[in-house]
Amino acid sequence: MQRIRLGMVGGGKGAFIGEVHRMAARLDNRYELVAGSLSSSPKIAAASAAELNIAKSRSYNSFETMAKKERSLKEGIDAVAIVTPNHLHAPAAKAFLKEGIHVICDKPLTTELSDAEELKTLAKESGLVFAVTYNYSGYPMVRQAKQMIANGELGNVRVIQLEYAQDWLAEDIEKTGQKQAAWRTNPKYAGKGGAIGDIGSHAFHLAEFMTGLETSALLADLDSFVTGRTLDDNASILLRYKNGAKGMLWVSQVASGKENGLQIKIYGDKAGLEWSQEDPNYLRYTPLGDSMKIITRAGAGAEQLSNDASRLPSGHPEGFIEGFANIYRDTADLINAHKNDGQVDSLVPGIEDGCRGVLFIEKAVASNQSGSIWLSLDH
Amino acid sequence: MQRIRLGMVGGGKGAFIGEVHRMAARLDNRYELVAGSLSSSPKIAAASAAELNIAKSRSYNSFETMAKKERSLKEGIDAVAIVTPNHLHAPAAKAFLKEGIHVICDKPLTTELSDAEELKTLAKESGLVFAVTYNYSGYPMVRQAKQMIANGELGNVRVIQLEYAQDWLAEDIEKTGQKQAAWRTNPKYAGKGGAIGDIGSHAFHLAEFMTGLETSALLADLDSFVTGRTLDDNASILLRYKNGAKGMLWVSQVASGKENGLQIKIYGDKAGLEWSQEDPNYLRYTPLGDSMKIITRAGAGAEQLSNDASRLPSGHPEGFIEGFANIYRDTADLINAHKNDGQVDSLVPGIEDGCRGVLFIEKAVASNQSGSIWLSLDH
Amino acid sequence: MQRIRLGMVGGGKGAFIGEVHRMAARLDNRYELVAGSLSSSPKIAAASAAELNIAKSRSYNSFETMAKKERSLKEGIDAVAIVTPNHLHAPAAKAFLKEGIHVICDKPLTTELSDAEELKTLAKESGLVFAVTYNYSGYPMVRQAKQMIANGELGNVRVIQLEYAQDWLAEDIEKTGQKQAAWRTNPKYAGKGGAIGDIGSHAFHLAEFMTGLETSALLADLDSFVTGRTLDDNASILLRYKNGAKGMLWVSQVASGKENGLQIKIYGDKAGLEWSQEDPNYLRYTPLGDSMKIITRAGAGAEQLSNDASRLPSGHPEGFIEGFANIYRDTADLINAHKNDGQVDSLVPGIEDGCRGVLFIEKAVASNQSGSIWLSLDH
Amino acid sequence: MQRIRLGMVGGGKGAFIGEVHRMAARLDNRYELVAGSLSSSPKIAAASAAELNIAKSRSYNSFETMAKKERSLKEGIDAVAIVTPNHLHAPAAKAFLKEGIHVICDKPLTTELSDAEELKTLAKESGLVFAVTYNYSGYPMVRQAKQMIANGELGNVRVIQLEYAQDWLAEDIEKTGQKQAAWRTNPKYAGKGGAIGDIGSHAFHLAEFMTGLETSALLADLDSFVTGRTLDDNASILLRYKNGAKGMLWVSQVASGKENGLQIKIYGDKAGLEWSQEDPNYLRYTPLGDSMKIITRAGAGAEQLSNDASRLPSGHPEGFIEGFANIYRDTADLINAHKNDGQVDSLVPGIEDGCRGVLFIEKAVASNQSGSIWLSLDH
Repeated sequence: MQRIRLGMVGGGKGAFIGEVHRMAARLDNRYELVAGSLSSSPKIAAASAAELNIAKSRSYNSFETMAKKERSLKEGIDAVAIVTPNHLHAPAAKAFLKEGIHVICDKPLTTELSDAEELKTLAKESGLVFAVTYNYSGYPMVRQAKQMIANGELGNVRVIQLEYAQDWLAEDIEKTGQKQAAWRTNPKYAGKGGAIGDIGSHAFHLAEFMTGLETSALLADLDSFVTGRTLDDNASILLRYKNGAKGMLWVSQVASGKENGLQIKIYGDKAGLEWSQEDPNYLRYTPLGDSMKIITRAGAGAEQLSNDASRLPSGHPEGFIEGFANIYRDTADLINAHKNDGQVDSLVPGIEDGCRGVLFIEKAVASNQSGSIWLSLDH
Repeated sequence: MQRIRLGMVGGGKGAFIGEVHRMAARLDNRYELVAGSLSSSPKIAAASAAELNIAKSRSYNSFETMAKKERSLKEGIDAVAIVTPNHLHAPAAKAFLKEGIHVICDKPLTTELSDAEELKTLAKESGLVFAVTYNYSGYPMVRQAKQMIANGELGNVRVIQLEYAQDWLAEDIEKTGQKQAAWRTNPKYAGKGGAIGDIGSHAFHLAEFMTGLETSALLADLDSFVTGRTLDDNASILLRYKNGAKGMLWVSQVASGKENGLQIKIYGDKAGLEWSQEDPNYLRYTPLGDSMKIITRAGAGAEQLSNDASRLPSGHPEGFIEGFANIYRDTADLINAHKNDGQVDSLVPGIEDGCRGVLFIEKAVASNQSGSIWLSLDH
Repeated sequence: MQRIRLGMVGGGKGAFIGEVHRMAARLDNRYELVAGSLSSSPKIAAASAAELNIAKSRSYNSFETMAKKERSLKEGIDAVAIVTPNHLHAPAAKAFLKEGIHVICDKPLTTELSDAEELKTLAKESGLVFAVTYNYSGYPMVRQAKQMIANGELGNVRVIQLEYAQDWLAEDIEKTGQKQAAWRTNPKYAGKGGAIGDIGSHAFHLAEFMTGLETSALLADLDSFVTGRTLDDNASILLRYKNGAKGMLWVSQVASGKENGLQIKIYGDKAGLEWSQEDPNYLRYTPLGDSMKIITRAGAGAEQLSNDASRLPSGHPEGFIEGFANIYRDTADLINAHKNDGQVDSLVPGIEDGCRGVLFIEKAVASNQSGSIWLSLDH
Repeated sequence: MQRIRLGMVGGGKGAFIGEVHRMAARLDNRYELVAGSLSSSPKIAAASAAELNIAKSRSYNSFETMAKKERSLKEGIDAVAIVTPNHLHAPAAKAFLKEGIHVICDKPLTTELSDAEELKTLAKESGLVFAVTYNYSGYPMVRQAKQMIANGELGNVRVIQLEYAQDWLAEDIEKTGQKQAAWRTNPKYAGKGGAIGDIGSHAFHLAEFMTGLETSALLADLDSFVTGRTLDDNASILLRYKNGAKGMLWVSQVASGKENGLQIKIYGDKAGLEWSQEDPNYLRYTPLGDSMKIITRAGAGAEQLSNDASRLPSGHPEGFIEGFANIYRDTADLINAHKNDGQVDSLVPGIEDGCRGVLFIEKAVASNQSGSIWLSLDH
């Protein structure tokens, strides 16, 4: 099978998420990384490209040049992965869409809702594939839950409990030169949301992805516990869903001892489901009036959606990279379908999901600024 | 050591919590159950008393009679345990306080805040011991956490995450004749709060007990998911503490699969602590920048407060009854100190805690009625 | 209901297991402790008796005197609990059997198999109740497993994996004056087995109790890792059962980090079951080809045998004392049935189980001495 | 960095472990799969090669041809991965060694000890890299344990408890056409060991790898529980280590409910360590006299050896493929060092480990045949 020619914007040496995207792209051998604008520093860009066996001629100093040049090549890139800090997502995505190149963009989609809306229009007009890497939706057991809920195994969903807690910003490490912390706590690069943007939007997406429910309103209380920090590092959010379900979402990057503690618990009138990102191969399923069942990835009781996303037999743990790789693999299917003018059902989060994530961030900030009031998510 | 003569109001056959109180009172041999008004039905009262080896002459048909009669006996009861539905707590407690008898009362203290305040005045004037069985504060590892926080091991507390979830009211079993469900979902017997009163007030108390912090305000969104139910069966509550800490409290009795899921997670700027009632012998302690430590009851790292509340070596699980029994044992110490005009430091929840619990319920209901607004808990 | 008059031999101040027996006897109010020979030191015996509200006249300096004297009283004890170091179990039990007093004896039954056999004869001739406190068989979920296996839910049992590991003897604390360690590591008081007697015999019993299978042979490799220690502190044992099932039993008191780590895993051709003493309210049940089910005490799927042994709803943890108390409660039923010349089905480990435990110890020692050979348990 | 040209023997469509090797080889972009003899069926071989973008000219019908032909190419393969059933490991490895091609071979190394010894001689004479994919040694926390033990944090190791249990052979699925089961239960393809060879040898290796101890003797009791099965499907094995430590190893493929349950527990006189393959990112560390610490991959307390083997921050789970990929990555370092006549310290299991694995299998079978006697592993 021919591999998709991939370019990358961002992700040079010292970056974190770029290498994750590359491993995800490699795992199933569906992509070939052939071009990049890997850093705003030309020196780092060149060195990073060399390390990745990208030809010198296809290592660029700006994404604008890269978009134009790649389009002009006979075997230019089919798709680009945008893995820069948030503020560059919009201009970079625009540049590639304009050149007819499919986009895989990290989240949150943009720093302003208006930019997100503009991108949505562009993407729809272009007909190109636009994937937003809400990667947690790639985990097999998340998809297992999605299918079980769609099958009606939970009955009517009543309560959704979400938390995404970390501790790496419990101190003001942004002042110590820690690069990841520096941009993520700076509104110029990160946008209006701190923790709610960096991780909260993942949880927000996951709830809608798994349940198929739409969030109707939210109420937020945001904190910046670390002295001198502008953006939120802890958030207490109430959620309402269109079917009447209620949700709570705790987001924190100052929760001492939490590593990457994303978990979701969903309760319907027939059963409950619980999943934790740090123990991702298991799903706890609690039918009302029966014992808890531990459904294992690729084990008995695994549904089609999760088996499709699974590479190994049960008991052989899959992790974060494999979940991320599912987003890449499914996006490859979309791109190939596009080539063939075909259609394919897809679980890949797209431009709509990206927009909702930015909407979530803006409304949470607005609710908090108004003293924690309910704000509708219809707009 | 002479045992305390104990009477009981409520707790006849078919009741749940009465037998729990009795086992708790028995475990350390500090009490002798000698009198009771065990049921509003004279027949059940008599049969229940007989089963408990209570002399016929000391089995009463009303708590008023019991209070007066017992006072007149040379060896009348020293203390009474009130284990009725909520609406009788206030009148029963008043009756015994008036006769100079110490009171151990189940929670919530009363169905109206005004009654709670009146009881507080009476209790303080009487000088008698008044214990409110917020029994979860009797668990050794809850006390371990309390001492660690008091010692400064968490630093400044920033975030408190609380949940107390059950599923036994996920369906309308109150219509099927289930007695426990019937009174707990009926405002006449339960008061203004459903789940928030029955279990939410436990979590509210626990947070203040463990951290020593005072809640300054709350914001609540209450639900009655089961059709036809008047009182809340699910609640989403935000909390603010006087030191600036933020809290979230999820209370539910419709969370399919949850048995008695009370858990508390506390994060300070130096460390975090997590405890779960269903796994009560362990405390997860996460100092910032170090590995998680699992502190075990009576094991290495156990503090004085938890060792005092512990009966067995580590690895020999203690449970709910033992935690409850600690409230009884500590109350026995208070009563003995009272006899000797002595003083004793005590961890037993008292009339103040009882009043705060009722205040919590009233404010949660009021916030919800006003569309989820912040309400101060100062009054 | 009239309570059983209980005496106790051993269990004075400074002892461990005596107070456990007393709490277990108290919990259900079926016993009244009225006599004792609580210590070989008359001073400690008297002080301990006073603390327990035992009348001076019924605090004895020797169990021989106690047995004779109590028999002569109009309201002398019905039963005696023997909680001394192992070497006194046999003479004490004999003394009380001779006087027609029921016996509740701690394990292992005796230090010599011949003594155990003699006791068995005496007990059978007397017709008296003889309970041996293999207390772990009192846990509700152990009984749940027993019933599930009897019901055929595991099919034919193939494999039994047992471990009982502690760490309290990882160092030579017997040389530091630690009383519990001193006698348990001394053959004079403990008998031929160290860890295998103190804890290994519990695991051995549990496997036979839960599965209903009889052990046919064993092969043992024993160690004394701590310098200067005579008795085993670690043992690796292979087991064969009469139905062809195979077992492995690891026993250790030098396993750094283990508190009271008794666990049993049983696999049949239809399903498996796993239970851990330190998390006793749950049973993991794994039907072949289906998801794991977590069966909770008093929850959905709980069988009659476990519900009978349960005091609280699911989610309200019961622990070690409650399990121990089930042995006492069931023994009370046996004693009452004896009074009424009645019969009662019982799960209480008796004199036969006691003898098998001693047989296990002797054979393990003999196998080890012969270089780890298979020895039959038929004798 | 130039990638290593890799060939593969076995691993065509329908195989299991071949794709695992390929994902492991891909993850870090250190290998390029360019040749293969992927199946004994020419049709499957060709189709599989096409799917993997292997040029037609380099898809071979026999490994002998492949070895010779590849050697003759200017850019022939540097290394070959052998992923066939066991009986072909030896002839295939020999063929490539003879042509000067590095070998990565699945385990167990051979079906006969004599073959293993012969390979060892050949490999040593050739000076080529020879890796045996005892892949569990690639897990970061396994290496963490290795380093902690080497650092003396456990003190003198006393006890090693091993288990590797699965249930996929609980029924006679080898008779149903299940290909993996068919060859693994057939001595012709699998060799003398069933479960002990397929999975037991992993556990045996892991214990020596982590502790640095050499096994001196073993005693085995093997079973074939499933009717008609020739090879063992359950094994109970006792182990002795040269330093005096004792071990137990339970191996089973009939343990209903077990998926891929490899776990190892190691106790020294200063501390204990426990690791489970199904929860691989955590290591439980229990210093004597202190609380248990949960050491997390890439978290606080992680040692150099585990950080070197880690790709993601803590809380972002890594799994089986990532551990396997570490073997490939480290082997790439060895191969590159070989090219440069350099030396590199390596954790990759080599030909010696391969030989010990086969020795383990042979001795276990022999001990069992002699009625479970101790056999020395010196030879």
